[in-house]
Amino acid sequence: MGSTFVYKADPARGLQWAEVFRREAPEIDFRIWPDIGDPQRVHYLAAWEPPRDLAQRFPHLKLLFSSGAGVDQFDFSVLPARLPVVRMVEPGIIRGMVEYVMHAVLDLHRDMPQYRRAQQRGQWQPLPVRTAAERRVGVLGLGSLGQAVLQQLSAFGFDCAGWSRSRHVIERVRCLAGATQLDEFLSHCQILVCLLPLTEETRGFLDAARLQRLPAGASLVQVGRGPQLVLPDLLAALDSGHLAEAVLDVTEPEPLPASHPLWSHPRVRITPHIASMTQPVSAARVVIDNLRRFGRGEAPLGLVDRVRGY
Amino acid sequence: MGSTFVYKADPARGLQWAEVFRREAPEIDFRIWPDIGDPQRVHYLAAWEPPRDLAQRFPHLKLLFSSGAGVDQFDFSVLPARLPVVRMVEPGIIRGMVEYVMHAVLDLHRDMPQYRRAQQRGQWQPLPVRTAAERRVGVLGLGSLGQAVLQQLSAFGFDCAGWSRSRHVIERVRCLAGATQLDEFLSHCQILVCLLPLTEETRGFLDAARLQRLPAGASLVQVGRGPQLVLPDLLAALDSGHLAEAVLDVTEPEPLPASHPLWSHPRVRITPHIASMTQPVSAARVVIDNLRRFGRGEAPLGLVDRVRGY
Repeated sequence: MGSTFVYKADPARGLQWAEVFRREAPEIDFRIWPDIGDPQRVHYLAAWEPPRDLAQRFPHLKLLFSSGAGVDQFDFSVLPARLPVVRMVEPGIIRGMVEYVMHAVLDLHRDMPQYRRAQQRGQWQPLPVRTAAERRVGVLGLGSLGQAVLQQLSAFGFDCAGWSRSRHVIERVRCLAGATQLDEFLSHCQILVCLLPLTEETRGFLDAARLQRLPAGASLVQVGRGPQLVLPDLLAALDSGHLAEAVLDVTEPEPLPASHPLWSHPRVRITPHIASMTQPVSAARVVIDNLRRFGRGEAPLGLVDRVRGY
Repeated sequence: MGSTFVYKADPARGLQWAEVFRREAPEIDFRIWPDIGDPQRVHYLAAWEPPRDLAQRFPHLKLLFSSGAGVDQFDFSVLPARLPVVRMVEPGIIRGMVEYVMHAVLDLHRDMPQYRRAQQRGQWQPLPVRTAAERRVGVLGLGSLGQAVLQQLSAFGFDCAGWSRSRHVIERVRCLAGATQLDEFLSHCQILVCLLPLTEETRGFLDAARLQRLPAGASLVQVGRGPQLVLPDLLAALDSGHLAEAVLDVTEPEPLPASHPLWSHPRVRITPHIASMTQPVSAARVVIDNLRRFGRGEAPLGLVDRVRGY
């Protein structure tokens, strides 16, 4: 009598997970929602949005996996208190985020927004080129994504800093920590990249006071979660000239309605939450690896601390 | 009786060269055009555009340096036949080019032109994310710039190929060479980066026949020289849908006049020849290093082969 693993997210991607499970973990009965088989046998669930009646429906659930980066879409208050929840940390998500942030930082560093506007006016107007060493970039949030992004930024020669709630050590990166060092960190960032998880503490984190701590002419790359950024404060900082540009991959709400004024702001670039997506094949492999760890009595990689919220 | 070194290019940058020479090669009499001192003592000249009467004006000239990347701005027919000409190969130029090309390739790879157009329509429309390993990128021209660009592209995981007149070996890059392998190279390139030098052979190189060899839906990043690209052929390839996008840092003519139709093509992005600029400090150091080599009887790095033209 084996264990059933239920996948409850995009079914097309689920078929790619199924193929990996068939080849690499044939002992597991892998099923795609709503074809769940016997609910008594469902020990594992990977979901973007778990069913509301999860505890009743799957009484023997042992592990809940998020099918994408982040767990802020989970309502922990309705999840059984002792159910371990596992974030998705897989190489596909990390590579996608590194690509997106490198593009956004190079776009700002090399004055591409200005050149795109000059093109609209038919204007051939070279601007002075600054070296990466003269450009101060900072990353808020030093989880696996933030660390990978900083490693790539420092390999390009940018003058890098990172900030997190707790102390980290990253080669060639000035790491600051906690509330007492936040202002010092923000004053460093000519380009600020936000990669914080969404928690009660980070909701509304990027507000007028914190944006004002950035040096004049700074730019923002927001790849965390939409509710972290106070939109009226962003617009005020752009319109006063304190902020030069903003690149937003996440917004509040999502999708951003067609009528929203953000779309047409000349110094805001918006992408529809595509910075990074779980790659089904590498994600399924990471989940199988975690099932094996769990079977050996080890903690799965990416286990969520419910008190911190990530 | 020392040697005079004359710098004939942007005077503001010349002051930065002067500072490096003063500190690191004080034995050389460094001068900025038109303050050349005694023309009989001018042994070295760094110029973007040498004086037309160079041979008469500086009868004892021993070395001519280009002050920027490329020597296609030199008219070799009026330069003394035995005067060694030295290209500018310095780390600042290479870093700038790597930044520019990485930005352009990531921009195309991550569908940023489509997202910018969707933003204009207020449209939140995620597109499937492909991994770098699924994206085939090729670089035409394997000099120091092409090699540095390919190393960075392959570090990001792109499926890379390179083409040059002569055979090269670069780790993790499929290197093709010569006329017989050009079609095979072009058919690989979903994103084609042109980093060829401008010579009689490469003038008009990117024409209808060669663009047609690219796979359908390919894109072009042109960072070589304007006259290599046959503009009507590019526009026809874009308008037929065979080419998806073009990023041009060089055009013919330069500056591109405000009235030119290229500016407003929806799938062409233009920057005003800013991909890479000589960084005065590192350029002056490279030139001083070459003067020392020359003094020891060694060939300077970047010596131009006048038959090849680069």
